[in-house]
Amino acid sequence: MTMRIYGDTKSGNCLKVKWTAQQLALPFDWVEVDILQAQSRTPEFLAMNPAGQVPAVVLGDGRTLAQSNAIMLHLAEGSALIPGDPFERAKMYEWLFWEQYSHEPYVAVARFHVLYLGKPVGELDAKLVERGGAALARLETQLKQTPYLVGERLTLADIALVAYTRVAHEGGFDLSLYPAVKAWVARVEVALDIH
Amino acid sequence: MTMRIYGDTKSGNCLKVKWTAQQLALPFDWVEVDILQAQSRTPEFLAMNPAGQVPAVVLGDGRTLAQSNAIMLHLAEGSALIPGDPFERAKMYEWLFWEQYSHEPYVAVARFHVLYLGKPVGELDAKLVERGGAALARLETQLKQTPYLVGERLTLADIALVAYTRVAHEGGFDLSLYPAVKAWVARVEVALDIH
Repeated sequence: MTMRIYGDTKSGNCLKVKWTAQQLALPFDWVEVDILQAQSRTPEFLAMNPAGQVPAVVLGDGRTLAQSNAIMLHLAEGSALIPGDPFERAKMYEWLFWEQYSHEPYVAVARFHVLYLGKPVGELDAKLVERGGAALARLETQLKQTPYLVGERLTLADIALVAYTRVAHEGGFDLSLYPAVKAWVARVEVALDIH
Repeated sequence: MTMRIYGDTKSGNCLKVKWTAQQLALPFDWVEVDILQAQSRTPEFLAMNPAGQVPAVVLGDGRTLAQSNAIMLHLAEGSALIPGDPFERAKMYEWLFWEQYSHEPYVAVARFHVLYLGKPVGELDAKLVERGGAALARLETQLKQTPYLVGERLTLADIALVAYTRVAHEGGFDLSLYPAVKAWVARVEVALDIH
């Protein structure tokens, strides 16, 4: 059975999984799930993923996996997207957890409020603006030193973090303040062939 | 050089790392960093971990690693705390990311507000109470089926999730509503020899 990816194309978390599968040339069927229509809260969906979140994948053997970064780690196992060196791999994990804790809850949520809930940028919660800016500044610090987040090569950390960073302007963030981030976004978009 | 763990003993995220090192019998020095005194925001600390967060570890070779779950994955590599089966390992990743995104921001934050900021439980943000309860209910669903989160054996998922679950009552959550979770907490405490 071909792997099925359940995702909402509006969601960077879902696109991460799609891009990883594409990058690894893994065959998959994409099943669109509209979050705004609560399609991830139907009884059928909850039976598959009790967390009621997308993305979720049903693997070839019928088993289900959720959490974007966990799915990426599973799909990419043994590939060049995960560094072979233990310390570099640990740094990749560090970025993946930081992304979900200190980047996505601000950068992605600000975008969601503006783009899908229609909130004017000027009325965004100050915490979203401040912490989203801090997350982008932290990326800038790293990307002034290395072309990719974990050194010289593309890893899952770049795929995870580019997803919402490349659309951060849709949540009111000005990427021109972070030139190294902007250059990295372009670099990762070329590597992933997404434009 | 002995590994140094920088952590605040009030923080479950820091204790996770300590328990993992103890469980693996890895030698370490514990360096207490008081978050409430902003000791993780000093120039010295920020030079080590630019994210300004604990836990952080300085490994034997002098290199630094941050993010509790990333540190645990690094320390436990090749041990029985990480399942050898790829799908079980992926489920462990799923719980680790879910912990940081859907459990810690509610269960741990509610506790922080009550225990360290002195907020009465009745005045907690309704979102913390609701989503923290939902996280505990999700654990209950799993732990009614399996003794540990990823099946029959203790993994990093249990260490990560027990950290704030075992003190959830300090944030106003009533663990007696979740009997399978309560039994699992006791089981993991015995396995980790923490009481």
